[in-house]
Amino acid sequence: MSSSDIFIGETIGTAVLILLGGGVVAGVVLKRSKAFDAGWVAIAFGWGFAVLTGAYISAPLSGAQLNPAVTLGLAIEGGTKWSDVPVYFLGQMLGAVIGAALVWVAYLGHFHAHLTDREIVGGPGAQDTAAADRGTVTGPGPVLGVFSTGPEIRNAAQNLATEIIATTVLVLAILTQGLNGDGKGLGVIGVLITAFVVVSIGLSLGGPTGYAINPARDLGPRIVHALLPLPNKGGSDWGYAWIPVVGPLIGGAIAGGIYEIAFA
Amino acid sequence: MSSSDIFIGETIGTAVLILLGGGVVAGVVLKRSKAFDAGWVAIAFGWGFAVLTGAYISAPLSGAQLNPAVTLGLAIEGGTKWSDVPVYFLGQMLGAVIGAALVWVAYLGHFHAHLTDREIVGGPGAQDTAAADRGTVTGPGPVLGVFSTGPEIRNAAQNLATEIIATTVLVLAILTQGLNGDGKGLGVIGVLITAFVVVSIGLSLGGPTGYAINPARDLGPRIVHALLPLPNKGGSDWGYAWIPVVGPLIGGAIAGGIYEIAFA
Amino acid sequence: MSSSDIFIGETIGTAVLILLGGGVVAGVVLKRSKAFDAGWVAIAFGWGFAVLTGAYISAPLSGAQLNPAVTLGLAIEGGTKWSDVPVYFLGQMLGAVIGAALVWVAYLGHFHAHLTDREIVGGPGAQDTAAADRGTVTGPGPVLGVFSTGPEIRNAAQNLATEIIATTVLVLAILTQGLNGDGKGLGVIGVLITAFVVVSIGLSLGGPTGYAINPARDLGPRIVHALLPLPNKGGSDWGYAWIPVVGPLIGGAIAGGIYEIAFA
Amino acid sequence: MSSSDIFIGETIGTAVLILLGGGVVAGVVLKRSKAFDAGWVAIAFGWGFAVLTGAYISAPLSGAQLNPAVTLGLAIEGGTKWSDVPVYFLGQMLGAVIGAALVWVAYLGHFHAHLTDREIVGGPGAQDTAAADRGTVTGPGPVLGVFSTGPEIRNAAQNLATEIIATTVLVLAILTQGLNGDGKGLGVIGVLITAFVVVSIGLSLGGPTGYAINPARDLGPRIVHALLPLPNKGGSDWGYAWIPVVGPLIGGAIAGGIYEIAFA
Repeated sequence: MSSSDIFIGETIGTAVLILLGGGVVAGVVLKRSKAFDAGWVAIAFGWGFAVLTGAYISAPLSGAQLNPAVTLGLAIEGGTKWSDVPVYFLGQMLGAVIGAALVWVAYLGHFHAHLTDREIVGGPGAQDTAAADRGTVTGPGPVLGVFSTGPEIRNAAQNLATEIIATTVLVLAILTQGLNGDGKGLGVIGVLITAFVVVSIGLSLGGPTGYAINPARDLGPRIVHALLPLPNKGGSDWGYAWIPVVGPLIGGAIAGGIYEIAFA
Repeated sequence: MSSSDIFIGETIGTAVLILLGGGVVAGVVLKRSKAFDAGWVAIAFGWGFAVLTGAYISAPLSGAQLNPAVTLGLAIEGGTKWSDVPVYFLGQMLGAVIGAALVWVAYLGHFHAHLTDREIVGGPGAQDTAAADRGTVTGPGPVLGVFSTGPEIRNAAQNLATEIIATTVLVLAILTQGLNGDGKGLGVIGVLITAFVVVSIGLSLGGPTGYAINPARDLGPRIVHALLPLPNKGGSDWGYAWIPVVGPLIGGAIAGGIYEIAFA
Repeated sequence: MSSSDIFIGETIGTAVLILLGGGVVAGVVLKRSKAFDAGWVAIAFGWGFAVLTGAYISAPLSGAQLNPAVTLGLAIEGGTKWSDVPVYFLGQMLGAVIGAALVWVAYLGHFHAHLTDREIVGGPGAQDTAAADRGTVTGPGPVLGVFSTGPEIRNAAQNLATEIIATTVLVLAILTQGLNGDGKGLGVIGVLITAFVVVSIGLSLGGPTGYAINPARDLGPRIVHALLPLPNKGGSDWGYAWIPVVGPLIGGAIAGGIYEIAFA
Repeated sequence: MSSSDIFIGETIGTAVLILLGGGVVAGVVLKRSKAFDAGWVAIAFGWGFAVLTGAYISAPLSGAQLNPAVTLGLAIEGGTKWSDVPVYFLGQMLGAVIGAALVWVAYLGHFHAHLTDREIVGGPGAQDTAAADRGTVTGPGPVLGVFSTGPEIRNAAQNLATEIIATTVLVLAILTQGLNGDGKGLGVIGVLITAFVVVSIGLSLGGPTGYAINPARDLGPRIVHALLPLPNKGGSDWGYAWIPVVGPLIGGAIAGGIYEIAFA
């Protein structure tokens, strides 16, 4: 694959991933959305099929990594050249920024309705308590939760551990695709399997931190959240921002290591 | 494919799509249905598997496009001949009309029970407020929502943007099938993937407008709604009708353009 | 396939289908079940994956028809010999009876707890009103609903029409498998697709009658319900019993006819 | 396959299975989890995709049995050598212990928040009544339910019967894979099918006992529950522990027998 195919593929694929992933959170937490209060099953399948869609579209161009932790794991394993890694990272970050901006466009009226409705938001950073009770919002309010993850119980070591464990599972599943007869990169069945693995991680390990499991998925949209002209949007919780970057990268590296030791 | 195979395939396939797609909305919003209040997850999977069923049945005859926006994207990309486009459109519109009429037959008793029950409908066009709170109905009442889409926040530019974005994702995913080893047209795995892409779009981008993403899916059933002898059925919201026609066509064209530039 | 393979395959496959299909209803409607009140999404996926499991197990022996309406459609189409039809029917009926009896064994304590709890059952045939409001029970009470289907709005012509329409979709999807590259009988992907088609029919067309779409699925368990020594179980609603037998057979025949005209 | 590949594969695969399976229960029942109260559909898909993920990762090394009942069934059928059986069992038990410990790490803060919150836990072994009403907890409280299964209605013969029936279905589906063109061991499509079979069993037969259907899945985590330093954790219900071990082994043997008689 040429560098430009990798860059374009990762940009388009990650944009689709974040558009659909951020979109399902917007649909579930923003007032006056038809999907309002659809619950955690909707969130988990929404993100899983966001991966499916983004990966299916970008697989022919870039192999559909869409995640710096996956790229790191594949580089350790040898499936991706280290010299290509920066191109992957750049495309993933740019795609995540574009995807988050598209969520803003698609749900613009709902963001404004949600944020300017005094009944549900007390002020900048306030909680939508009803939605919080249903467990569908992150720390500083549901709107930030559309963009970035946040912990339900804030504890750096604990939150980091959860992200590491969840990402290790994800990347290990992706690394074993080559051994499961799908060839390197993502075959069509591999896309399906990966999507269900992501649904699984969401259902099973998303409870504590909202499962970033992807540095670009969290950091790109958080930057967009900080820049967007949304009224009463609250802070972007930068104090937490390093955890969904560092945790997934450690998880990707651990998966690469496990693969080298146990499977290679 | 012969013109008659295309016409018959698209008619049967779109009829099945709209029967099952309209059916899931009827099941969820009409009083005394066993699926009443099953929520947005039911709606999103219902429409996704409606695509799966309609596409699987019609794939051998017409390649299962079932959507003028898809046909437009494929014509731009070159997979479908421009001279076949009118035949596709005609079959899709006829199928959508037949499918909507079949929903009416299958849920006839429930339409009447719903519309003549004073407790839940105050008069022509009135809202089923309880169902509206759950986000499962469109503007002019749940019965129109069985047939056509409608926005939660009415704003032409905003609603158009949402439909364009959602349809671009759909058509782009379909155009890349040829590159994913499924051949042109829909292979069996392609049908599965497309179904999950539609579930994804429903979960993630359906919140604002109810995701028509298909001009025939919206216009055909709206015509049927206008003609059907249902008591207290309210208006067919013709003021909104152009958006789910124009938006998806623009989205299909954009997807065709992106494909030509980035993938071809 | 030998007659004995057909008979054994259909018996085992239909038994698994009814065990899992009846089981999901038992799990959702019977008090003190962990799945209690899991809703219509659980019911629809439960029956769909019941088909998947029964079909996967029996496909190597009998081709996994598991449904007299499917057998009739395939006989009309030519995929099944008319002389094998009685063997299919016999195996399907026997399997349905065995499966329903196994549901009774698996949920025995829950049936008794449910039926002897005065708070929820007022007497023979009384409704569990709370569960009825959630739309998960059939006419004469939730326990009969574990075994057989029943209409929410009782009207023979209407109920028959709904069953005919739903079964036509099912059998048409199964008949087109041969054209979708899966070969005659059920390939592995065909099993997956069929399962999702059944989920689709459940979500979209199950609301009015509970979607028997299979004469053996309804009649076999109804016989078991009539024979079982359950306290306060109420009647078996024999007045309705012909509709889920005749409707699906008509639907299967219509699908066979459509296939012969449009696809053959 | 070498003994060391079998041992490593089963250990890693079962650890992933139990991490994700126990994780979904933790996510749904523990207070302050984002997935709190997501319901039985989340539980059933969570366990099904836990199997998918664990099986996909371990298939290239050990064939992904991950379950002593499956190993027993395959040994009876002849697909697994009797001399390999102890290695499978050992890896499965070790993996289950590791997986349960990882659930504890990933949800550590939530376990403590849940167990020390007087509003929801009255004392050791007390019930979270609200959650119990939703049917997502096992006997001695939701925390034990994260690790091991327990019956809703305690009756040894009844509970054993349910586990036997459910496991027979599971193992029979796995044994027929070889006949469904996936080859011995688990092909990629076989992994998908098996995952949906497990979702099916959870939806349909999980209501009475919580569907252990796997001795290692229940016994390994129960040992971990007994050893972990959790405050107010209550007892580990050792009186019930033999049922989810013996029941599934009997079910696996019955499936092996049915296979030998009907399919071989």
